[in-house]
Amino acid sequence: MRMKRKGILIVVSGFSGTGKGTLMKELVRSYENYSLSVSMTTRGPRPGEEEGKEYFFVSEEEFKRQMEEDGLIEYACYCGNYYGTPREYVERQLEKGKDVILEIEIQGALKIREKFPTALLMFVMPPNAAELKKRLEGRGTESRQVIDERMRRAAEEAEGIDEYDFLVINDRLEQCVEEMHGLIQAAHSMPVRNSELIAEMRKELEAFK
Amino acid sequence: MRMKRKGILIVVSGFSGTGKGTLMKELVRSYENYSLSVSMTTRGPRPGEEEGKEYFFVSEEEFKRQMEEDGLIEYACYCGNYYGTPREYVERQLEKGKDVILEIEIQGALKIREKFPTALLMFVMPPNAAELKKRLEGRGTESRQVIDERMRRAAEEAEGIDEYDFLVINDRLEQCVEEMHGLIQAAHSMPVRNSELIAEMRKELEAFK
Repeated sequence: MRMKRKGILIVVSGFSGTGKGTLMKELVRSYENYSLSVSMTTRGPRPGEEEGKEYFFVSEEEFKRQMEEDGLIEYACYCGNYYGTPREYVERQLEKGKDVILEIEIQGALKIREKFPTALLMFVMPPNAAELKKRLEGRGTESRQVIDERMRRAAEEAEGIDEYDFLVINDRLEQCVEEMHGLIQAAHSMPVRNSELIAEMRKELEAFK
Repeated sequence: MRMKRKGILIVVSGFSGTGKGTLMKELVRSYENYSLSVSMTTRGPRPGEEEGKEYFFVSEEEFKRQMEEDGLIEYACYCGNYYGTPREYVERQLEKGKDVILEIEIQGALKIREKFPTALLMFVMPPNAAELKKRLEGRGTESRQVIDERMRRAAEEAEGIDEYDFLVINDRLEQCVEEMHGLIQAAHSMPVRNSELIAEMRKELEAFK
């Protein structure tokens, strides 16, 4: 009897500007068995963002069509734009035993957990709030108004941290990627993700009674 | 801001004969920052067991005196003998920031979690039920009747596995020790054990609003 490595759906959230995207890309690059889910959004691409890599950029009309056809496992509206997770890719990777990583904000994360009770929720934080503001300003792509809105939004999101399974502080990238990998490995050892193994052990022990 | 490494109370349970004792000793020997809590019991020592090492062996009268004086953080009766955890050592080590490891069975584990909501509960399993029986027989210290009782007891205990945070299969000792260490590290990254850090971040973000 061995622990069966079923694919886990991993949800990564965190304040805008904590470097979640870079972390996730490095995680997929550094270790086998991870697949990155690409979200669909109605927001415009930032400089350097490519179609199908960071996001699938679609019109609001196309997004709503996907919603109606049940093609998204979750979706949410954030700062006036729609974001959603295409269903087909996620389900295919999980069936293959891959751990699939999604980046979504808290409402989406909680919806995912409702539909997938074995989903793993991780929250990425900056070392402190001043560092967060510095990173948002340093990005240079956002107006003062957008930065202020993101800081306000971060304060709101911080209220939901207790809902997450693990907390990750993104201070040094490499160390943080290794830590996230360790946390995902640990998640594979939780009873909720080993129900078949537990049922098998119970059945065997009953036979010995 | 850094994650503060408060000591965690780690409860290790598992069927009798899964090698929990050896695992815990190796864990303490292999890594710093772990302290092993020694339980008090009214059962007689097995060959090779030393006073104050595997257990504090006491009379039923002495055990009941400790119970009355609130000197035990939990106690239980198992197969006709009392087992309990002396309070003073555990609290002193946790204050020092040490992770304290206890070996107790499920009722005790659940009582510990009630009193210490940040306690970590780990369940050790053999690779399969036949292996468990083989290990109990190989020990050579127990009668047929005791072995049968322990197997029945294992079937009962298996009902409670879902209450534990992590599941560990004791197949190869070294690998298992390393895995337990990884799981304990992961436990330090759960929100429940970082309430001060989260409160600090919320306060900082509020100040930026």
